Amino acid sequence: MQKIAVLGIGQTIVAEQWEKSLKEIAGEAVLAALNDAGRDSTDAIFVGNMMSGQLNRQENLGALIADWVGLRGTEAFKVEAACGSGAAAVRAALMAVASGMIECAVAVGVEKMSETLGVDTTAALATAADADWESAQGVSFVAINAMVMRRYMHEYGWKHTDFGPFSINAHANAMHNPHARLHEPITQADYSRARMVADPINLLDASPTGDGAAAVVLVPADRLKASAQPLVTIEGSASATDTLAVHDREDPLWLTAAAESAQKAYAQAGLGPGDVDVFELHDAFSIMAALSLEGCGFAERGQGPRLGLEGEILPTGKIPVATFGGLKARGHPVGATGVYQILEVVQQLRGEAGQCQVPGAKVGMAQNIGGSGANIVTHLLRTN
Amino acid sequence: MQKIAVLGIGQTIVAEQWEKSLKEIAGEAVLAALNDAGRDSTDAIFVGNMMSGQLNRQENLGALIADWVGLRGTEAFKVEAACGSGAAAVRAALMAVASGMIECAVAVGVEKMSETLGVDTTAALATAADADWESAQGVSFVAINAMVMRRYMHEYGWKHTDFGPFSINAHANAMHNPHARLHEPITQADYSRARMVADPINLLDASPTGDGAAAVVLVPADRLKASAQPLVTIEGSASATDTLAVHDREDPLWLTAAAESAQKAYAQAGLGPGDVDVFELHDAFSIMAALSLEGCGFAERGQGPRLGLEGEILPTGKIPVATFGGLKARGHPVGATGVYQILEVVQQLRGEAGQCQVPGAKVGMAQNIGGSGANIVTHLLRTN
Repeated sequence: MQKIAVLGIGQTIVAEQWEKSLKEIAGEAVLAALNDAGRDSTDAIFVGNMMSGQLNRQENLGALIADWVGLRGTEAFKVEAACGSGAAAVRAALMAVASGMIECAVAVGVEKMSETLGVDTTAALATAADADWESAQGVSFVAINAMVMRRYMHEYGWKHTDFGPFSINAHANAMHNPHARLHEPITQADYSRARMVADPINLLDASPTGDGAAAVVLVPADRLKASAQPLVTIEGSASATDTLAVHDREDPLWLTAAAESAQKAYAQAGLGPGDVDVFELHDAFSIMAALSLEGCGFAERGQGPRLGLEGEILPTGKIPVATFGGLKARGHPVGATGVYQILEVVQQLRGEAGQCQVPGAKVGMAQNIGGSGANIVTHLLRTN
Repeated sequence: MQKIAVLGIGQTIVAEQWEKSLKEIAGEAVLAALNDAGRDSTDAIFVGNMMSGQLNRQENLGALIADWVGLRGTEAFKVEAACGSGAAAVRAALMAVASGMIECAVAVGVEKMSETLGVDTTAALATAADADWESAQGVSFVAINAMVMRRYMHEYGWKHTDFGPFSINAHANAMHNPHARLHEPITQADYSRARMVADPINLLDASPTGDGAAAVVLVPADRLKASAQPLVTIEGSASATDTLAVHDREDPLWLTAAAESAQKAYAQAGLGPGDVDVFELHDAFSIMAALSLEGCGFAERGQGPRLGLEGEILPTGKIPVATFGGLKARGHPVGATGVYQILEVVQQLRGEAGQCQVPGAKVGMAQNIGGSGANIVTHLLRTN
């Protein structure tokens, strides 16, 4: 496979953007990314989105967004893998460019969650879980994650407070990210006394929803020899699935799809966990941050929280995570999240992360999770 | 780009399948296709589906279906382009295999429309149109097509009865297709007196909904030298978009995206309209059959109905269409339709079409339309 580069990136703020429609938010990110890439067109647009049909009464986003950004006629589809839709769209774009059938692809992730014309957001999010064996039984998406967290605490002996560093780090990093949903530093005391959502998950374990879009422009790397910008290439890209329902898994505390996709991506890139300078992980809930770190080989099974407690996830630590705030504080506009993660890794590798910068970052990883570990996409990026 | 072959095909009946869930229907098609291909696994599954979130309260179909067919862990995403989702999934699968990043991909289109746990089907279908400027104004999807048909009749001087041959041919062909939704021959008199749906579209201008799934298995053609089966390869694949709202188009009676995608596919294949032996077109409404024939160069602008009136669309005609019944009589399980079309072309090119066979068919075309011409995917297939 030929090497593919991320030539441009663009994002909107994550917020309740009442004054803007879904296509306007998506368009803002696409145009910013094309501008950053120094291009005024693309051969295809892949839209990562989960809930537009349910929340915004709008499908066929590909055609809508292509036309809106002034690229009427351009090939464009939506790609969906629940909360993993963003990275799935990037992977589809990557395969499209790697196929040689097109030369340039934009992947844009977008979700507009503050407007719910159909069902409410909690009901829409529940469609990421198994309709027959989870949602229809009355369990919400956060409740599924709460059961996983409770079991994890029981099994490995962690207390709720041990997960605090994940949220505290995310909130601290988001302070320097102008696009973040939350600009509000929190302490361990704030974390412990936050109001309960679904025991043991409290408000500060859970990522906030939001309206937002992020986009990346992909082209073959060999076209970019003369580029002035530091070249960021995709060195590994893999995805794997698992059972949709958590109870169907042999071990509900192990993200098989995280491990499988990470191992494949490491092998493609010729890299291992020790080479990763920054890791944008899927901290939709603090328990998922721990499980993701374990699945990708940064911590032993059951020992994810230790990395938080020992300060290793901080920008100065061994494996900095959520460097722009993560899902927890940058915000989690569901179908957009996976693209935000990759865009943030690119900012780090370009050395353009401002006060969020991890010094000397050369290798970055992004892992996007759809459902409670059911569909996981892992990307490894590198700069020269 | 290396040549990609369709190694296996599988389908379910199109019907109200109350006794089967979405994953069971999809699984039936995937397993049949893998069996036909002589394989027991695949590297990836691309699911074409439009409305599962709205109608079945289930997203994340990729993981769900992969697990259900016994391929837990396999990469799997949903691809959506409204009624064009099926062919979009095939195109995504094609690009994935062509990229060399994977060696085998299954594209499965599925829709379960008889069960509506959320909004009703008409409301869900309306999300294929522009939410702000069409659906929110109260116009349904069939009403949009009715306005196009009315304008077409006015502009080019056709009477409603002139569209009858499209529906009559489709119903006649479906008589020989055991998977078809309707097994009911109709006459010109039946067509003319059918009850009105949205003037001038009556019941026999409109395709029936249904539950169904179809799947194809794609692999690089050069792996198949020793295969006994006639080799069917994808010679052209292209897609294009147009405005989502019909009123935004310079000419609402011309499918720009049909013309653009067809021209690209012809150019890739080194073929033209005169080479096509069978054409599975998107006759969601009879007016769309006429517009598709014109956009692809089989008829002059405004002259599509003439091909019907002159018998050229019959299995014995110059350009046989809807050879297994088309959307009109095989049925239109929305996200599955584009895969049914390609599967039917493969049946024709293999010479396995039974009583639906177009004698000596060597080149087949399939065109899938999402929205009222907003997202169009065209494939050209050939046998050696």
